[in-house]
Amino acid sequence: MADATRTETDSLGTIDIPADRYWGPQTERARQLFRIGDQRFPPLLIRAVGLHKLACAEANAALGELPQELAEPIRQAAQEVADGKRDADFPLPVWQTGSGTQTNMNANEVIANRANEILGQPLGSRKPVHPNDHVNRGQSSNDNFPTVMHIAAAEAVEGRLIPALGRLHAALWRRAEEWNDIIKVGRTHMMDAVPMTLGQEFGAWARQVELGQARLRDTMPRLLLLPQGGTAVGTGLNRHPDLDTVFCRIVAERTGLAFAPNPNKFEGMGAHDALVELSGQLNVIAVSLNKLGNDIRLLGSGPRSGIAELIVPADGLSSSIMPGKTNPTQAEALTMVCARVIGNNTTVTVAGAQSYLELNVFKPVIIHAVLESVSLLADAAESFAVNMVEKLAPNRERIAQNLANSLMLVTALNPHIGYDKAVRIGKKALAENLTLKEAAAQLGYVTPEDFDRWVRPEEMVVPGMTLEGGG
Amino acid sequence: MADATRTETDSLGTIDIPADRYWGPQTERARQLFRIGDQRFPPLLIRAVGLHKLACAEANAALGELPQELAEPIRQAAQEVADGKRDADFPLPVWQTGSGTQTNMNANEVIANRANEILGQPLGSRKPVHPNDHVNRGQSSNDNFPTVMHIAAAEAVEGRLIPALGRLHAALWRRAEEWNDIIKVGRTHMMDAVPMTLGQEFGAWARQVELGQARLRDTMPRLLLLPQGGTAVGTGLNRHPDLDTVFCRIVAERTGLAFAPNPNKFEGMGAHDALVELSGQLNVIAVSLNKLGNDIRLLGSGPRSGIAELIVPADGLSSSIMPGKTNPTQAEALTMVCARVIGNNTTVTVAGAQSYLELNVFKPVIIHAVLESVSLLADAAESFAVNMVEKLAPNRERIAQNLANSLMLVTALNPHIGYDKAVRIGKKALAENLTLKEAAAQLGYVTPEDFDRWVRPEEMVVPGMTLEGGG
Amino acid sequence: MADATRTETDSLGTIDIPADRYWGPQTERARQLFRIGDQRFPPLLIRAVGLHKLACAEANAALGELPQELAEPIRQAAQEVADGKRDADFPLPVWQTGSGTQTNMNANEVIANRANEILGQPLGSRKPVHPNDHVNRGQSSNDNFPTVMHIAAAEAVEGRLIPALGRLHAALWRRAEEWNDIIKVGRTHMMDAVPMTLGQEFGAWARQVELGQARLRDTMPRLLLLPQGGTAVGTGLNRHPDLDTVFCRIVAERTGLAFAPNPNKFEGMGAHDALVELSGQLNVIAVSLNKLGNDIRLLGSGPRSGIAELIVPADGLSSSIMPGKTNPTQAEALTMVCARVIGNNTTVTVAGAQSYLELNVFKPVIIHAVLESVSLLADAAESFAVNMVEKLAPNRERIAQNLANSLMLVTALNPHIGYDKAVRIGKKALAENLTLKEAAAQLGYVTPEDFDRWVRPEEMVVPGMTLEGGG
Amino acid sequence: MADATRTETDSLGTIDIPADRYWGPQTERARQLFRIGDQRFPPLLIRAVGLHKLACAEANAALGELPQELAEPIRQAAQEVADGKRDADFPLPVWQTGSGTQTNMNANEVIANRANEILGQPLGSRKPVHPNDHVNRGQSSNDNFPTVMHIAAAEAVEGRLIPALGRLHAALWRRAEEWNDIIKVGRTHMMDAVPMTLGQEFGAWARQVELGQARLRDTMPRLLLLPQGGTAVGTGLNRHPDLDTVFCRIVAERTGLAFAPNPNKFEGMGAHDALVELSGQLNVIAVSLNKLGNDIRLLGSGPRSGIAELIVPADGLSSSIMPGKTNPTQAEALTMVCARVIGNNTTVTVAGAQSYLELNVFKPVIIHAVLESVSLLADAAESFAVNMVEKLAPNRERIAQNLANSLMLVTALNPHIGYDKAVRIGKKALAENLTLKEAAAQLGYVTPEDFDRWVRPEEMVVPGMTLEGGG
Repeated sequence: MADATRTETDSLGTIDIPADRYWGPQTERARQLFRIGDQRFPPLLIRAVGLHKLACAEANAALGELPQELAEPIRQAAQEVADGKRDADFPLPVWQTGSGTQTNMNANEVIANRANEILGQPLGSRKPVHPNDHVNRGQSSNDNFPTVMHIAAAEAVEGRLIPALGRLHAALWRRAEEWNDIIKVGRTHMMDAVPMTLGQEFGAWARQVELGQARLRDTMPRLLLLPQGGTAVGTGLNRHPDLDTVFCRIVAERTGLAFAPNPNKFEGMGAHDALVELSGQLNVIAVSLNKLGNDIRLLGSGPRSGIAELIVPADGLSSSIMPGKTNPTQAEALTMVCARVIGNNTTVTVAGAQSYLELNVFKPVIIHAVLESVSLLADAAESFAVNMVEKLAPNRERIAQNLANSLMLVTALNPHIGYDKAVRIGKKALAENLTLKEAAAQLGYVTPEDFDRWVRPEEMVVPGMTLEGGG
Repeated sequence: MADATRTETDSLGTIDIPADRYWGPQTERARQLFRIGDQRFPPLLIRAVGLHKLACAEANAALGELPQELAEPIRQAAQEVADGKRDADFPLPVWQTGSGTQTNMNANEVIANRANEILGQPLGSRKPVHPNDHVNRGQSSNDNFPTVMHIAAAEAVEGRLIPALGRLHAALWRRAEEWNDIIKVGRTHMMDAVPMTLGQEFGAWARQVELGQARLRDTMPRLLLLPQGGTAVGTGLNRHPDLDTVFCRIVAERTGLAFAPNPNKFEGMGAHDALVELSGQLNVIAVSLNKLGNDIRLLGSGPRSGIAELIVPADGLSSSIMPGKTNPTQAEALTMVCARVIGNNTTVTVAGAQSYLELNVFKPVIIHAVLESVSLLADAAESFAVNMVEKLAPNRERIAQNLANSLMLVTALNPHIGYDKAVRIGKKALAENLTLKEAAAQLGYVTPEDFDRWVRPEEMVVPGMTLEGGG
Repeated sequence: MADATRTETDSLGTIDIPADRYWGPQTERARQLFRIGDQRFPPLLIRAVGLHKLACAEANAALGELPQELAEPIRQAAQEVADGKRDADFPLPVWQTGSGTQTNMNANEVIANRANEILGQPLGSRKPVHPNDHVNRGQSSNDNFPTVMHIAAAEAVEGRLIPALGRLHAALWRRAEEWNDIIKVGRTHMMDAVPMTLGQEFGAWARQVELGQARLRDTMPRLLLLPQGGTAVGTGLNRHPDLDTVFCRIVAERTGLAFAPNPNKFEGMGAHDALVELSGQLNVIAVSLNKLGNDIRLLGSGPRSGIAELIVPADGLSSSIMPGKTNPTQAEALTMVCARVIGNNTTVTVAGAQSYLELNVFKPVIIHAVLESVSLLADAAESFAVNMVEKLAPNRERIAQNLANSLMLVTALNPHIGYDKAVRIGKKALAENLTLKEAAAQLGYVTPEDFDRWVRPEEMVVPGMTLEGGG
Repeated sequence: MADATRTETDSLGTIDIPADRYWGPQTERARQLFRIGDQRFPPLLIRAVGLHKLACAEANAALGELPQELAEPIRQAAQEVADGKRDADFPLPVWQTGSGTQTNMNANEVIANRANEILGQPLGSRKPVHPNDHVNRGQSSNDNFPTVMHIAAAEAVEGRLIPALGRLHAALWRRAEEWNDIIKVGRTHMMDAVPMTLGQEFGAWARQVELGQARLRDTMPRLLLLPQGGTAVGTGLNRHPDLDTVFCRIVAERTGLAFAPNPNKFEGMGAHDALVELSGQLNVIAVSLNKLGNDIRLLGSGPRSGIAELIVPADGLSSSIMPGKTNPTQAEALTMVCARVIGNNTTVTVAGAQSYLELNVFKPVIIHAVLESVSLLADAAESFAVNMVEKLAPNRERIAQNLANSLMLVTALNPHIGYDKAVRIGKKALAENLTLKEAAAQLGYVTPEDFDRWVRPEEMVVPGMTLEGGG
């Protein structure tokens, strides 16, 4: 940033601004007033800001609210913001006014300055394009910013998270099909239970991921409703009555997402239940993926003194002290992300619950947390698919050995000799370190021949069930 | 409970049981092993347990897995459980085995004992009806209990919460229509803003409640999937291959809810994402209702030194020291319930995230918290509708006075004189305690005649917008 | 409850009350207005209510604010409440006014009625003892109820939780000493790591529990500060200036806890940071115990296809389908309790964060959640000590076998041959299924003699360290 | 970053590394394996990493474990890291291995390369200074990283947060003293209550902040315990037996904080209860500050149609649509920070609860969240002190007007005429819009002369109480 400054004047006085920056007095004042943290809105949100201003300019022009000669340079400048070319001109932290007003004013100022520059005027001239009267025409931060929040969140969910979950689902499902012939010990309460296939284990995780996608899709109808047009409190003061409809049509065309006007602008500005809901679904996905990460590290524990049914990939990362130790590093990154997403849900909930009267003023923290959760889940899901699921291998020898030893095969005897006798066989085998067949014979409950006929792991796995959940 | 005991024997030994109780050895052992807290499952869950056992008996009989002469007394005993006649025979706390096994065994024992009694046998005889071999036929706690959880939750949502929200929505919406002619100051950032109607304020809350119902309905497809038929680990060992289908058909008929077999039993037993999702939606509803409670107490603050636009009903409850003080007691009960529901969502999330391998073993704490949240939200929503919303009154005098004083009416001048000049008018009026019209005239920006033409609160409220959100 | 009623009159009108109940009009009105949930305050809180009223009566009498002839029957009636003899006369739910006013008024009415009865007057006479003028003398719900909250919480922490944690600590520490000679594989990232003793594992858990006690003790200084004497808003209007001091002295004598007046009554009534803090420490204890429960079930997993280094006690509870299966049921009850306590902390946080102006009005939900957490942690800690820790056994054979197989013994070679060569040995042994000694020799890095000299598990365990943390 | 690369070799193979970077193969591999999010550790943590390696080198040299000629360049390179000169060489995200191993290896590699460079060797030479054998001498990531976590957190709390809270406390307390003569209406349940002073209101907030400092100080004893010396699992394998003591002495000297060896290394590595506890105290501080922010915006609501007893500073930031509107922007930034901190506490809790066996593998997410909370609270507290508290003004006219109108002055009559009659006066005044004096006289309960003698707001405020809580 250059040391040189220019002096700008707005309705509240004059202020010095770095000469090479497009922002104006409101942004500069905010920069000095909010020296809190270093969290910034992600590029995804700034792009939505640009798209939003572009669509407003086009809509106002189409409705006769803005002369074409002002609308065009505004449109052009907004496109630059949408294209990520003005990211450096958005210097404000998340921790600002709770309506996101400073970021909206930042956009108004940057776009006005740039539009005036295009029209041959110096920065800070405030004409012919005025940041409030033209760039913010028929708008308020109060309807703009929540509209931007919904656009950014919807694009992130559709463009990033659902595809990333698709990638993970595909990787898991391929394993499910590939390893559906490997019969192994199931585990309940962390204890040896009756048999199942390794494919069924992967199929369950795949199903969870698939349902996560469905959960996201079910929130879209509410996420696609935009409060644009409510202006200051929801009544739509100072905007053209058709602005909301035209605006949504433009945004829908540009994004390919079916955005539509929120029929109740007051709800869309005063509360952010739709984003609390989305965060809740991200929370469910984190819960699902936390199970996935935990299960993989449990089944991969060892290599010799754990369960060790899966072989975790040696990824070239090593313990700093224990030579050659391979750790489930991707499972750890994944479950850490889950902890973050779960905490973000608390943040969003606390912020959403404090929606006072006509305006929720926790907007920046809400959208920052939601976009962080979406991005982290997407990145982590992909990383886990590529660096873990696709590189896992079954330890067939160990799996077979565990299965052969399992005492819970005794369950197959229930229908033949009844539960109470089966209990006695199982307890005797464990206590005396016998095989089930030996214990059954010694107790005189089952002949060895019957035992071999009745206790067949391969028949215990799929008595009439096929692998399901492949989405 | 009588002092007399009878001695029962199961595969694990003998134990004394209160003579007049229907439960058996497993229940009695659990009673002694889990002396933790006094939280019990609500009657709603016990009723689902009865319904579940009844449906299993009918399904097994229909499929030839259970002789009709055993199925009938089981069905009859299970019906008694479903009817709430055996609540006293379910003495176990929530804090037991994480699979809910003890409650399932409790049901097996109570129903077996009662069935045998019907057949003329003494309690504890374990025949002809055996708790495991017959009452639990083709089942495991591992598929039974999550099935019961889903049935109880789905019934509570459909039978209690959605109707209660409907009651609240109707009360709010009636106010929205009734008071849509009352123009008042809107408030953003807790500060005076441009006008709106009192009806619009109630309409926004109504819309939130209506969307809460939609959120619940969107979770139903996943909540209606039952893992019954997975038995021990999800493979369905020891059950008839058609058990799941027949079972679901019976339960659907009895409840009127479209229950269906979960296509992936492993997912439905190893994880409880569907209940985490439901809890997340309850969390959103709590967020919505917390805003409602907060907003009502803000608008009702006073009676003289607050906002005082609403008159909170005098409910006959009084301060213990300040004579005649009326407080928004229902808003406080409501928001306290919201805090509880939000915390329950954390509980359910933490419990769901720790789903290990083939069995999530936090089942009791999950369903206890979910049912608590559903019941509390339903009760509180109804109480708030009846005791608060329907008894509120607008303070028309105060509302008119506030509106007349509002400086933000200046916003209507933006399109006529531009934002910057409007700022100067507003600041001058505030600083010098003038009316906006006086300040505008003194600055020479607007004539009194233009001012009266341009600044009309009644036109600022509904420029092209009608009241929406009435569901 | 009898069907007969009596009619009582207070300043707000007349109302019918069950004839055999001691409560009065305010309680009866609240009973009808708050039909929300079935959660009640625990006996512990009602006892604190009685103790509180008793101390107020004694203090007021000592300060000349209450005639002895009224103070004495009030004292006597309050003692009955403190002794649990009037629990049935406290019918109100947690979900009432956020100040706890209804429960305070309930106490005023029950005690006034009972005191008047003692003095030979019928229930409902309101004289000579008046519920507000005498039982509530110099008090407000606003200082009474938070005082009661602190008394109940402090007693529960000191009287229940700290001792229960002591019981658990002792059980763990006994194991730590008893099994400190058993050398086993340590595990990091769930993977086999260098050796340690089984005693050290128990010692770490014991240390966590011990630190939990320290955390509770560190919160006591703030918990022992009582806002009694603030009356309505904190100024102490209408009470004797020495009431707070005398009151605290009486309560301290009765409880043996060093209660003292909060020097800033406003803080103690308007906020509940001290209870949020306590809840935060309960949250830490839940985190510690969740690890304990998880670790025990991991080490006890098996019996044949898991880690299986600990033998979980067969407690007589059985799977409903898998005969003879033993599960870590106590670990599951414990970790479910932890999930509840963690959620309660969110509830308390959300409730505490919404402390408006002079009065936090989430008092009932806060104290209900805090007392629930304290009780559940205490019960679960004791149950886990008695039914799990004291009944665990080490599986010495499995432990020795795991240790012998461990590849991470290679770490002992680092100081002798350097990290890089040690890596190669470890990787070769794993890949070719060799012993470390074989791999080292084949690579020519270490002779078998040096290997035996350098790699000694028993020396890897305690190089200069003794067992610590026994409190 | 330059396009040119150099090729480095470690025990796991060769890899290309940007030529101008000090990091090595492990860092480079991790960079490619963890493409998750853009969250990085803050400079504060990297400085602690440098300090930690410096202290290890000095300690090992002092104990004869590291030749002085290697220790000195390591020390020098580590100092550069501590001084923030190598921040660009720490490129790894938070979302890596859960032990922080990659960041420890990153430090080992950067310091080894830089030390070798100082000794005249090219980057990548791995000698004479080896990243594991020398820089990591007698250490493991498993004891290093938690030690670094504690150092960074303790420095942040002592160096940033406690002073920032001190700044806020001083600002609040100055207001408390300055405005203690302004008598105003207190508010409970958001409703008008008995009088108090404006100074008492600020004094309560000051007291909360002061207690927040005390809470932090009470956690320090556990935060100052460092697990350094535990190495891989807690036993201290491969380190000098006095390393922990010498190390802690060096760090204590450098930081001025009384760090000491954790007597139970296993606890300090396997669990992070001390940081969960710290996070819990940060959560309490967030709860306190959330009240502060809410209360200020409530009292500052208006300027004409709210409570309006405080005048929120015009900070030059404006609504984008409502001209001249002043909003409590700092209160919004503050309360948004609180929402974040509360969510971070959930993250830390979830991460801490999943501490498996000898190593909690959620270390990076825990320390990232804790340091974020500490920094945000510190920044926000200072910003609120400077930009809000110090610029607030009382609206004396409005305060006096509100006080004069208050009906709750009737409370002063209780001791004279009893509660029941006082109720009737208050209700009559409200219903008929009378003054209390008029209502009292009309009912014949109090003569005007007595009324003036008994109802004196200035005497209702401090009946024997002085302002307290000034720390």
